[in-house]
Amino acid sequence: MSVVAISGGVGGAKLALGLDRILRPGELTIVVNTGDDFEHFGLKVCPDLDTVLYTLADMADPVQGWGRRDESWRVMQTFAALGEETWFKLGDADTALHIARTHRLNQGSSLTEVMEHFRTQFGVASRILPMTDDRVETRIDTDEGDLAFQAYFVKRRCEPRALSIRFVGADTALPAPGVVAALSSPELQAVILCPSNPYLSIDPLLAIAKLRQSLKNRAAPLVALSPLIGGRAVKGPTAKIMQELGIPMTPASIYEHYQGLIDALVVDDADAAAANQLPVPVFSTATLMSSLDDRLRLARFVLDCALSLPRREPQAIC
Amino acid sequence: MSVVAISGGVGGAKLALGLDRILRPGELTIVVNTGDDFEHFGLKVCPDLDTVLYTLADMADPVQGWGRRDESWRVMQTFAALGEETWFKLGDADTALHIARTHRLNQGSSLTEVMEHFRTQFGVASRILPMTDDRVETRIDTDEGDLAFQAYFVKRRCEPRALSIRFVGADTALPAPGVVAALSSPELQAVILCPSNPYLSIDPLLAIAKLRQSLKNRAAPLVALSPLIGGRAVKGPTAKIMQELGIPMTPASIYEHYQGLIDALVVDDADAAAANQLPVPVFSTATLMSSLDDRLRLARFVLDCALSLPRREPQAIC
Repeated sequence: MSVVAISGGVGGAKLALGLDRILRPGELTIVVNTGDDFEHFGLKVCPDLDTVLYTLADMADPVQGWGRRDESWRVMQTFAALGEETWFKLGDADTALHIARTHRLNQGSSLTEVMEHFRTQFGVASRILPMTDDRVETRIDTDEGDLAFQAYFVKRRCEPRALSIRFVGADTALPAPGVVAALSSPELQAVILCPSNPYLSIDPLLAIAKLRQSLKNRAAPLVALSPLIGGRAVKGPTAKIMQELGIPMTPASIYEHYQGLIDALVVDDADAAAANQLPVPVFSTATLMSSLDDRLRLARFVLDCALSLPRREPQAIC
Repeated sequence: MSVVAISGGVGGAKLALGLDRILRPGELTIVVNTGDDFEHFGLKVCPDLDTVLYTLADMADPVQGWGRRDESWRVMQTFAALGEETWFKLGDADTALHIARTHRLNQGSSLTEVMEHFRTQFGVASRILPMTDDRVETRIDTDEGDLAFQAYFVKRRCEPRALSIRFVGADTALPAPGVVAALSSPELQAVILCPSNPYLSIDPLLAIAKLRQSLKNRAAPLVALSPLIGGRAVKGPTAKIMQELGIPMTPASIYEHYQGLIDALVVDDADAAAANQLPVPVFSTATLMSSLDDRLRLARFVLDCALSLPRREPQAIC
C-alpha cells in the first residue's frame, strides 16, 4: 500500500494523522504546503510542515491547533522585555526546531532533508515532504495592500479584505525530491486531498506546474475531502476568503476548484444534498474531526472511497 | 565622575556590578572582552558581554555564574530530541537574546548598538561596550591541537594542556565606538582592570593596538585587581593556564603581565606579603566576592585606591 496525502496546516494535519495511524509505517507520504513559510528573526519558520510534524509526533497543541503541547514561552517573554516584535508567537520548543532547521539549511541541507531528519528523530513513520525546496511565497492582495501570508494571517488576523491570492516563485519552483516519484509510483493506490483551505493552503501546491502535472498523471484515484460542513468552514479564514472572492460556500465550489484533478469528493452529511448533482462520485459522512477516533474513522472512510474507485490509465485525463 | 572598567566574564562582572551600584547612573563604562564570542547554531553568542549584562540587570544565575537566573531549558531538550549538539547550554531566555542580537546584527546594527539597546531595555544604567565590533577570536594552542575558545573552555572543559593563546583578528581590529572616547575623556577619573583571567579575558582587549594605546594614554589612574587569592585562582581555568604556561601563581606575575599599564595593584590580604616588593603601589583587602556586600565594598575599595593616586600626564608613560 502506498498513499499520498496533500495537506496544508491544521485541518489537513488532522486527516493526515488519521491516515498515518491506520496505515502501516512507511505507507503514507504527506506533501505539505510551504507557501506560508517565512523568516522571522532570521529563523526559517514552516507553519504547515511543523503542524503536520507535531501532529503526527503526538506533540501538537490540541487546543490552539498550532505549535506544541505543553509549550513554554520564555523566548516570547524575553522578546517582549527586549522590545522586539511579539505578534508571531514562538514557543520555546518550537523555537529550538526553527533554530536547528535554519542552521541545517545554512549548512547546505535542503528543506526536504531537514524535515526527513526531524520526522525520523521524532519517530514519525510517515514521510513528510515539503511541496518544494524552492521559495514559494503566498501573498494576499488586500484592500490594505499586498501582504505576506503571515502578515495577513497572524499579524492582521485576516481582517483586511482579500482581493486575490498569488504564489510568488511558484512559476519556477520544482516539486521537492520524492514528490513526483511518490505520485508516479506504480505502488501508489490513493491520493487524498486533505480538507485544508483550497485557496490558501492547497493552491500553492497546484501552482507548481510539475507538481500539478504529476497529480494529473497519477494512476491512483484522487479523492478530496471538502473543508465545508453545512455550508460553513470549520475554522480559519476559509469562509471569509470565499465570501470576499465571491465564491459560494457549497460543495460545488470545492468541486469546481479541483475540477479535472479529483475523481471523487467526500462531503459532510450536511452537504450531501447540495452535492448530489456533481459530475464526480460524491461520498458523504460526518467530517468534523474532534477526537482521535473521528480522525481514524474519517481517514478510513476517505481511503476506502479512494480504493473503491477504478485505477486510471496514467495521462488519460486532462 | 567617570570610570571605565575593563572586564571579562564572571569574576569581572562581579566587580563591575559593585562599581555599577556605588556609582551614579551613567558614570560607569564597562569595556568587555569579545574574544570568546562565537556562532552556535548560527546564533551570535557573546558570553562575557551577556554575563556583564545579566549581572548588572540582576538577572544572572548566582550559582553557575553564567546565564540567567530561573532559566528554563526547553530549547536544549528539543535540541537533544532532534539529535543536535548539546555541549553548549543555551537557556530559553538566553537563546531569545541571541536570536534578537543575531537578527539585529544581520539587519545592519553593530554589536555596540545592539548591546546599547539591550542594556537600555533591561534598565542597566552603566554603558556596556564590546571591546570591538570587529571579529577577534581567542584560540588556544593545545596538546590536542588548535582549539576555538568555547571548544576548549566548554566542550573540552579546559582539559587539553594549553601551549599558547592567540587572538585572531586582533591585529586589524579597532576599538568599538566609544571605547577610545571613554578612555580619553577629561572627565575620566579611574580605570579599573577587573579580576578576570589576564591571559584569556583581558589579553584579547590588550591585543587590540589602539585600545592598548588608549589605555596607556589615559590621564586617570589605572588599578588592577588581582584574580589570585592566596596564590590560587578563585575559579575557572586561571590556575591551570598559568601552570601550563609556566607562570608562578603570585602577585608578581600579575604585575609583570600588566607592567607599564597599571599604576597600582590590589591584592588579597593573603597575597599582601608576596606583593610587598612590587615597583607599583600595592593595596590589600579581602577580595573574595561572595555576597553583594562584598562586591560593593570591594568596588569602593578599588575605586578609592584609584582616586588616591595622582592623575597622570597623558602620553607620559611607555
